[in-house]
Amino acid sequence: MPAPLFAQNRICQLFGIEYPLVQAGMIWASGWRLASTVSQAGGLGIIGAGSMYPAVLEEHIQKCRAATHKPFGVNVPLLYPEMDKIMEILVREKVPVVFTSAGNPKTWTPTLQAAGAKVVHVVSSSKFAAKAQAAGCDAVVAEGFEAGGHNGREETTTMVLVPAVRAAIDIPLLAAGGIATGQQMLAAMVLGADGVQVGSRFVCTPEASSHAAFKAAVLAAEEGDTQLSLKKLVPVRLLKNDFFQAVAQAEAAGADAETLSQLLGRARAKKGMFEGDMAQGELEIGQVAALIKNMTPAAEVVAEMILDYKAALASMAALQAGE
Amino acid sequence: MPAPLFAQNRICQLFGIEYPLVQAGMIWASGWRLASTVSQAGGLGIIGAGSMYPAVLEEHIQKCRAATHKPFGVNVPLLYPEMDKIMEILVREKVPVVFTSAGNPKTWTPTLQAAGAKVVHVVSSSKFAAKAQAAGCDAVVAEGFEAGGHNGREETTTMVLVPAVRAAIDIPLLAAGGIATGQQMLAAMVLGADGVQVGSRFVCTPEASSHAAFKAAVLAAEEGDTQLSLKKLVPVRLLKNDFFQAVAQAEAAGADAETLSQLLGRARAKKGMFEGDMAQGELEIGQVAALIKNMTPAAEVVAEMILDYKAALASMAALQAGE
Repeated sequence: MPAPLFAQNRICQLFGIEYPLVQAGMIWASGWRLASTVSQAGGLGIIGAGSMYPAVLEEHIQKCRAATHKPFGVNVPLLYPEMDKIMEILVREKVPVVFTSAGNPKTWTPTLQAAGAKVVHVVSSSKFAAKAQAAGCDAVVAEGFEAGGHNGREETTTMVLVPAVRAAIDIPLLAAGGIATGQQMLAAMVLGADGVQVGSRFVCTPEASSHAAFKAAVLAAEEGDTQLSLKKLVPVRLLKNDFFQAVAQAEAAGADAETLSQLLGRARAKKGMFEGDMAQGELEIGQVAALIKNMTPAAEVVAEMILDYKAALASMAALQAGE
Repeated sequence: MPAPLFAQNRICQLFGIEYPLVQAGMIWASGWRLASTVSQAGGLGIIGAGSMYPAVLEEHIQKCRAATHKPFGVNVPLLYPEMDKIMEILVREKVPVVFTSAGNPKTWTPTLQAAGAKVVHVVSSSKFAAKAQAAGCDAVVAEGFEAGGHNGREETTTMVLVPAVRAAIDIPLLAAGGIATGQQMLAAMVLGADGVQVGSRFVCTPEASSHAAFKAAVLAAEEGDTQLSLKKLVPVRLLKNDFFQAVAQAEAAGADAETLSQLLGRARAKKGMFEGDMAQGELEIGQVAALIKNMTPAAEVVAEMILDYKAALASMAALQAGE
């Protein structure tokens, strides 16, 4: 049930949640513990399947369900291997909400919806948003350039992307990228979003499965400490470390995709974000890390963001009333 | 005098204007005609001195003053040549507001303030915002990655930059980058800005001195049609054309600053934006060009943005009231 302020909110109605606040399904961060805590707190928690073998994902879904009776979701990058097995699990487990990304939303949306799931596709342009709507998706996430991890090639920021996507589709819209506070949540709603997806902020919670050293690095990050990297492969926003600098040097010297791919190698994301190798790991985080200064329990993150959202809304209402 | 809704607004009070809406001083676009029209409409119009010889600037200031009794400003990139002459003119002509960028705000702020001017410095990070405040500036413009033209190296977007700068300074704050509508203006205010600086939107007005072919190209621009270029020199957001592609190719092949500087050559900005060479000119415009679809008189741009701002604010107030 939506909270009173969000009684008419389409995201709350679609997912059956209290607040239009979705926790992003981030690899090596968003397991059942984080997802169930956020859902229990009134948002929508999401398990990030991108870093899980099918059997591991199944376990996380079951543990999440044991920890909360509230709706939750799973995020699936559609280009990952063993997609048949992943989808079979999502259908069998009747996962209420599935967020898909990096692939064609036409392929799996009907299968998932037939099993009762709401399907949301993540996009970085209004063109792809329109395609997701045409594919029958229930909602869209518009993710701006400032977001952590994999990112669009057009580099459109949240400030420009959200109104552009809003104009292109009718279905509910979540804004992502650069959102870690209640003020930013309200700003995204003013731009036309029905709700927000928040990633980086939830990395700095005890419930995130990210390595403690990575959480500490995110808390220490300042403006300019992340940058879009590996643009000749798939653009990804990374925290600047030795690995990032090696890539930047290679890129400045004109390295091609093949060279970058070799430099990246395998399992660097796990090495960094899960195993804590701060020098050689791939550290995916958003620009908004610069605003995150405290480790905070995930339920408190939700409560604080909603409190600040309400305060920001109240001060806008006061402005309107001429107070 | 601020309009009633903005009676307490610090930007309106600082400049003595009706609406906290500043038209950016853009090279080859913002002459006396555009600036005086925006000021006459209740915003703050700004003459862009970056593309003017001192004698030309003086003429524009005098014509602007003849066209409106309301306050207006001049934008000065501090690294340009003949700065002594420019400053002498600003002081002699008693220009009410001076926006400075690309240089140290300590150098000229006291001189300008002693002559009665309000001085505003443009920054792309909270570190530089704090320095501008320490230099005695009256306000700061925080300009995000999505903005057109010259841009910061840290690539921080408006969504993240505005709250970061707000937390770092106490003086009035203007948000810039990605703002062309009243909704975006309100979103920027929710993020902590006291007002906004709008560039790209004012290029698509009859009053802008930009070439008609450039205005048409901006109107035709879609998402992904601009990109940050020349990062090894000074990063600048450009509309993608033949010149942009030549630079992109050189950059992908590892070209150094010297090579890029030769590729850029001289007077390319004038060639593109003022003389209308859409293939070989340097075309500076923001990401928000994707949202601009109509040529509109500058006074109507101001009126529409304020109308949409009020409507967005009213719908937020209605949300707060549970309507």
